[in-house]
Amino acid sequence: MHEFEIINKYFSKLALDNKSSLNLNDDVFFDKSKKLVISVDTYIEGIHFINFEKPKFVMKKIIRSSISDLICKGVDPKYYFISGSGNKNYFSKKNLKLIAQSLKQEQKKYSIYLCGGDTVFSKKLSFSITSVGFSDKIVLRNKAKINDDIYVTGNLGDSFIGLMILKKKINLNKNLNRYFENKYYHPEIQINFSKKLLSLANTSIDISDGLIADLEKMINKQKLSYKLYLKDIPVSKNLDVLINSKIIKKISSISCGDDYQILFTASPSKSRIISKTSRSLGIKISKIGKICNHLQKPQIYNEKDEIIAPKNKGYLHKF
Amino acid sequence: MHEFEIINKYFSKLALDNKSSLNLNDDVFFDKSKKLVISVDTYIEGIHFINFEKPKFVMKKIIRSSISDLICKGVDPKYYFISGSGNKNYFSKKNLKLIAQSLKQEQKKYSIYLCGGDTVFSKKLSFSITSVGFSDKIVLRNKAKINDDIYVTGNLGDSFIGLMILKKKINLNKNLNRYFENKYYHPEIQINFSKKLLSLANTSIDISDGLIADLEKMINKQKLSYKLYLKDIPVSKNLDVLINSKIIKKISSISCGDDYQILFTASPSKSRIISKTSRSLGIKISKIGKICNHLQKPQIYNEKDEIIAPKNKGYLHKF
Repeated sequence: MHEFEIINKYFSKLALDNKSSLNLNDDVFFDKSKKLVISVDTYIEGIHFINFEKPKFVMKKIIRSSISDLICKGVDPKYYFISGSGNKNYFSKKNLKLIAQSLKQEQKKYSIYLCGGDTVFSKKLSFSITSVGFSDKIVLRNKAKINDDIYVTGNLGDSFIGLMILKKKINLNKNLNRYFENKYYHPEIQINFSKKLLSLANTSIDISDGLIADLEKMINKQKLSYKLYLKDIPVSKNLDVLINSKIIKKISSISCGDDYQILFTASPSKSRIISKTSRSLGIKISKIGKICNHLQKPQIYNEKDEIIAPKNKGYLHKF
Repeated sequence: MHEFEIINKYFSKLALDNKSSLNLNDDVFFDKSKKLVISVDTYIEGIHFINFEKPKFVMKKIIRSSISDLICKGVDPKYYFISGSGNKNYFSKKNLKLIAQSLKQEQKKYSIYLCGGDTVFSKKLSFSITSVGFSDKIVLRNKAKINDDIYVTGNLGDSFIGLMILKKKINLNKNLNRYFENKYYHPEIQINFSKKLLSLANTSIDISDGLIADLEKMINKQKLSYKLYLKDIPVSKNLDVLINSKIIKKISSISCGDDYQILFTASPSKSRIISKTSRSLGIKISKIGKICNHLQKPQIYNEKDEIIAPKNKGYLHKF
């Protein structure tokens, strides 16, 4: 049973009489009357981060992953709470110092503040992060329209290559190893684009599980389908080299998540203003596909304009 | 190193420029301008709850423990988020059904709603709960005044006996075993007294770690001391029988926490209105001591008016 089944079958009815929960089918909770937006996520060693050898890097990764849930909805994060479970090896004086340093840097970078949380003893290491922001409105899931363009910010896939290097499944030269590892630990979340989303996007999500998996999640309650053009999906020059030398297929590299870029749809009438916004903010925003009628099957076109079927659409949270 | 040292040494400076965090030295976060109150807590199997043999009971215990943080500050909880980490043994279909049933009962009892969270895979079971409420003001820690009376709601100690029975360290007759186990799993949090606290209490805390430990935490930034009268500390008839038959010392039973009763101080001028409130709400509220000058040492008087020194003041979260 995967996470969506669990939520649908057992928990969505607990939230039914409460509109703000968005039926537990969005990245965040939104209380419109209080203008309050909250996201809660848990990160486990070995699943959401590879290990705790680099505490500073891990903290950055999980803080960015958490506030990304707000940012992709058009909301600036303001506070966060962190609840850490671990033993004294994880929470040694040296590590606590590194954790605090890292959080301080993230606070400065994203104008957020630590507001509470707790530390509890556990043999296994995990963190729960609650991020809080305030907004009159947010970009919801499941609000795509037929004929919308599909966009994504930044580049996809680098983070997954970094993970493969850290897991010793791929080994490149020193500089490339460092480049991709850095992309794994320091996702470039698009906080400067956040507020613009409110006027541009019909619907949005952040890419945590993989481009296709998250695209399907974004419209999972709508009778809609999509077309994606692999050639238009943005990757870094370094990843392009790996794809051209057949070290990894493009479709695989962008289906593994951890990118924390924003995936959104917008009316074709917004195309020019989106290009303009991209230039003025200096943020890469790529048009990668189209929303279409549910009578058509989802279609992914490769570079030769052939339809392909990905083996793996993305990470599935299974129990 | 215990939890307070960790917070003081490493994390309080991350929150310094943000008044709402209350310097990470309260049970909750309070954003006065947004009237927002948030509490985040993590519960680990084997530490915060004994095991997961009774999923319905465990969920009730941890939900009540979480919203107790708001209630003891004079704030009614409105929403909660739950983030569960575990494997498919913990999150079997049968258990998920029981978890949902239990949450539904708690939602009805306390007028709260599930608003989100997540489920992640982990070998060990833990839950993080974020509780949210709204209030113009809250009762803070460290606002006791010299000569304040010290009060506590309900009875103390039953929950600890329940834990000892579940751990098979004490065995009583079937009815008593059931009585105490029930008190362990179903703390009677004083939600009806919550709003009254705002006009009656100078300072407050809920008893999670033990009466004396939490009393000292409540005034840890103040130059104050206290007197406590053991004879006035309220216990149930059933616990009184155990104390009289010397199965447990009274001072030990009330120093182990998990009671989730409200400890507060109030000016002597509020004494009559507190008695009246106690009667009108049908909630036991006992005057158990006095706040005094820091030049005096903390004093705990036994039934014979002798000063005693407790061996163990309460649960210390150590790493």
